[in-house]
Amino acid sequence: MTTDLASLVNHQVRLAARPVGLPAASNWRFSEEAVAAPAEGGLVVKTLALSLDPAMRGWMNEGRSYIPPVELGEVMRAGGIGRVIASRHPGFAVGDTVSGAPGVQEYWSIAPEQVARSGLARIDLALGDVGQWLNVLGMPGMTGYFGLLDVGKPEAGQTVVVSGAAGAVGQMVGQLAKIKGCRAVGIAGGAEKCRFVVDELGFDACIDYKAGQLREGLREHCGNGVDVYFDNVGGEILDTVLTRINRHARIVICGAISQYNNTGAVQGPRNYLALLVNRARMEGMVVFDYAARYPQAIAEIAGHLKAGRMKSREDWLEGGVARFPEALGRLFEGANFGKLVLKVADD
Amino acid sequence: MTTDLASLVNHQVRLAARPVGLPAASNWRFSEEAVAAPAEGGLVVKTLALSLDPAMRGWMNEGRSYIPPVELGEVMRAGGIGRVIASRHPGFAVGDTVSGAPGVQEYWSIAPEQVARSGLARIDLALGDVGQWLNVLGMPGMTGYFGLLDVGKPEAGQTVVVSGAAGAVGQMVGQLAKIKGCRAVGIAGGAEKCRFVVDELGFDACIDYKAGQLREGLREHCGNGVDVYFDNVGGEILDTVLTRINRHARIVICGAISQYNNTGAVQGPRNYLALLVNRARMEGMVVFDYAARYPQAIAEIAGHLKAGRMKSREDWLEGGVARFPEALGRLFEGANFGKLVLKVADD
Repeated sequence: MTTDLASLVNHQVRLAARPVGLPAASNWRFSEEAVAAPAEGGLVVKTLALSLDPAMRGWMNEGRSYIPPVELGEVMRAGGIGRVIASRHPGFAVGDTVSGAPGVQEYWSIAPEQVARSGLARIDLALGDVGQWLNVLGMPGMTGYFGLLDVGKPEAGQTVVVSGAAGAVGQMVGQLAKIKGCRAVGIAGGAEKCRFVVDELGFDACIDYKAGQLREGLREHCGNGVDVYFDNVGGEILDTVLTRINRHARIVICGAISQYNNTGAVQGPRNYLALLVNRARMEGMVVFDYAARYPQAIAEIAGHLKAGRMKSREDWLEGGVARFPEALGRLFEGANFGKLVLKVADD
Repeated sequence: MTTDLASLVNHQVRLAARPVGLPAASNWRFSEEAVAAPAEGGLVVKTLALSLDPAMRGWMNEGRSYIPPVELGEVMRAGGIGRVIASRHPGFAVGDTVSGAPGVQEYWSIAPEQVARSGLARIDLALGDVGQWLNVLGMPGMTGYFGLLDVGKPEAGQTVVVSGAAGAVGQMVGQLAKIKGCRAVGIAGGAEKCRFVVDELGFDACIDYKAGQLREGLREHCGNGVDVYFDNVGGEILDTVLTRINRHARIVICGAISQYNNTGAVQGPRNYLALLVNRARMEGMVVFDYAARYPQAIAEIAGHLKAGRMKSREDWLEGGVARFPEALGRLFEGANFGKLVLKVADD
């Protein structure tokens, strides 16, 4: 199991320039580094797979958001799964599979003083495979789980609508809503995604917003109005759903992928006064706040997976970190089908 | 005390046409009616004073909101204070002072089957005068009280910001925030209103948004950020306050007077993603939901008035229902200073 670190080359993708609008090739710089042996208390992780997340676009902007931006010249931040290949830390052994934020690089060297706040955690592949650990058992799953249950507070019999329904967070929200006894209605782009959401994931309905019938679809499929709207997209879709909310509805603001690459101002929800009329609430959430409760959520979700009550769909892109810029582009085009994962190394 | 009803003429203001943008003279029609003796179980109320409220603009639009619109040809809806001048209802005697929704007319005849759902309630002038019963003891007071306490949930030491600070709801929100141990910062239009808000009402600070220094003012006066924002105005002011909210902030959506006379689309809050970053909440409220708790709120507020801990400022317009269209115009110009009240008859 011992790896000769001196023989390795760490291929990396660094942020070269902040994007205006959609990220382009010119925003990235490829680099190579040697992999040093860890100091006492440190370790080295080989990246197996990286998670592609809409939030990445925000990390590329200047200015502090819920976490600091990626600095120019830094390795791009990314969550992922890896294998420990060298360790002088008592909590991790060579061969352990771990989740964390390796960044877009093949090897992640963690200095002793960084281990505690690196978010590094051992994962159990008996609960799910690498893809599932980046999807329903990972950040998107946690986001959907806590966003729906803690912020959306759905009650059995209520109607839950989620945008980006075929995406990583959307999969969790709709499937969990069904498990909790709700009506689950998805919004997704394209007939194929909608079929998947209904036929494979078991949503009650899915509306293809690209077909231009969102308003009619909501009227048809949410006959009793909308009690919880889990919003991943913002823009026109948020505006339209606001016209159908029920009294005391909860709108979970998880993201706004339609707005992230805007070069102009963000489009605010023009129908926000529906909140007033309906005594409704719009509330933002950031998954990190629930970190202390991840283990219980993971245990519950792993149980749903084993029992066949829940599915986890990933869209794997092969080819390693060199394809990261392309992968990010696919994400913002909505070209992915399920959680987009970049494979970096064989298991 | 007996009034000869047959001798009376009821002057009324009816909705003649739905406005586009600001209401104009052509939206109104004046009418006169006789006043009939009440049927068994009914009563007649003489209007003493009417409340001018931003919400009136919404009632003039077609389409159901939180209450049905005023129909074309109907007497315009308005809250007010009156005196019972004829009663065949066991719960009300001639001479009783009452609050309710007389509409813009001099006499309000309430049919037996309408009394229960008319919102008619006897009021005690020992707790406050007619103006105060339309202000801090009335709907605006209740709106500020329950909106701040139940939706805003301020904690001692936190910073509460309220727009329309010199207006009816704003007065209550800021004064109550101070009583609850918060820092109270108002936003109002003009130096005179701001002086009143600070010097008379006891807010910690007031920012004159017409002076164009809202952003700087918030930075200066909300050094620890904004924990509760009580929004009566929407538009640019809401957008700007959103840039200063704290983690877990609560934004109470009470109204959006800046948007009510828009002929185009409502301007949605472009900075609504501040809710996400800050795990904050934006929530609408409608005062009627708290009706069961009005008595306890009125008792508390009357106590604050008697003890000199709270003030109630009204802007009286004399001249009766004929001046209603003008009064409404003053409200939307922001020309009023304190709660705008139209005097209809002497006490």
